[in-house]
Amino acid sequence: MPASTPQSDDFSDAGYRSAVVDLLGLIAYGELAAFERLAEDASLAPSLEDKMALAGMASAQVGHLDRLVDRLRELGADPVAAMAPFRPAIDNFHRHTAPANWLEGLIKAYVGDGLAADFYREVGSRLDEHTRALVDSSLDDSGHAAFVVDRVRRAIADDPRVAGRLALWGRRLMGEALSQAQRVVADREGLSVLLTGSGERPGLDLAAVGHMFGRLTENHVARMTELGLDS
Amino acid sequence: MPASTPQSDDFSDAGYRSAVVDLLGLIAYGELAAFERLAEDASLAPSLEDKMALAGMASAQVGHLDRLVDRLRELGADPVAAMAPFRPAIDNFHRHTAPANWLEGLIKAYVGDGLAADFYREVGSRLDEHTRALVDSSLDDSGHAAFVVDRVRRAIADDPRVAGRLALWGRRLMGEALSQAQRVVADREGLSVLLTGSGERPGLDLAAVGHMFGRLTENHVARMTELGLDS
Repeated sequence: MPASTPQSDDFSDAGYRSAVVDLLGLIAYGELAAFERLAEDASLAPSLEDKMALAGMASAQVGHLDRLVDRLRELGADPVAAMAPFRPAIDNFHRHTAPANWLEGLIKAYVGDGLAADFYREVGSRLDEHTRALVDSSLDDSGHAAFVVDRVRRAIADDPRVAGRLALWGRRLMGEALSQAQRVVADREGLSVLLTGSGERPGLDLAAVGHMFGRLTENHVARMTELGLDS
Repeated sequence: MPASTPQSDDFSDAGYRSAVVDLLGLIAYGELAAFERLAEDASLAPSLEDKMALAGMASAQVGHLDRLVDRLRELGADPVAAMAPFRPAIDNFHRHTAPANWLEGLIKAYVGDGLAADFYREVGSRLDEHTRALVDSSLDDSGHAAFVVDRVRRAIADDPRVAGRLALWGRRLMGEALSQAQRVVADREGLSVLLTGSGERPGLDLAAVGHMFGRLTENHVARMTELGLDS
């Protein structure tokens, strides 16, 4: 929707600025929580090589986080205050989807982060160019997806029976993510205005929101297929 | 000891190369273990700001680790095989010094990493320039010490009674570190040759080893003083 893409001078609009601060705070806290979770997964790694790979994935999140924190400061926002409102939803997501083992952790990293990234990109595509570029670079997975796909496919090849259980796990991740995403959008006016519009700013109508969820689901199905799992 | 500093062509000496691989493997596994421990400490952080600081410290270790792994590959060594012999000593150190709370974790990060860094620098000072520079850059703490000193001093100012318990903790860290360091040197011929010499390569005599331990202890005392703790 290029016609409604805001320009950089939109930051003089307090509502727009506050919505961007919300989005960056949400992504920043998401990265910090992902760091913690990936670091925990690293401790479950079956080999030193896997442990190093997970440590690399975890520390990539911190690199992204630093850039988001810098930008929040540039916008005159307190990064901690910007992140705080999103702790409950993100912490709940992680509490409700604690992986029982190494493979579940890998799938969660791949499917969960992929889904979050798709959602942030959908919101980001409606923002000014600078913010959009920052959001995109924060979501760069630095080739870590290939590592996960390799490990999960190998595990299924070794023992095809794990595929059923892991497919179920993927569905549970999707359900929990959608439920927390809905909570975030409902709680934060700024973010919901970005999605559904306000007086001056055209938003997505219900059909467009439906299409967005359709795209999120399609991408999720593609990721599960890539892993060799039913969705 | 500039007269005995090996030049870069020493890598044609299999014993020297293997000692360098040992040292880099030791430091690399130390960084990976430090990453895991700092990430665990991050989960104990009392505030989001502290959590971000610890996540930054943890991911700095991974940045160092990547450079060590690259260099090990350049030397034709398998990084995982180079790290493996040092897992028992380093894992034991961490098992025997699991912090009971946030402050103990901070002190361990500062005192333990400082001690390890001093020891690696002592060994590194006897090596070729390239290896020495790599060791030094791997041990750069990126200003994280200042964060720890600030937090510990504040905690003591808030409640001076914690100082006694934390001083005891510092002594325990020192004792455990020395005991594991001794084990590492005794187990790995390559490393002990670097320290104590061999036929062609002059090493440290007993007096010099004594001086080295004297310097390690002095630096430890200085760090404890900086924290506002008796040593």
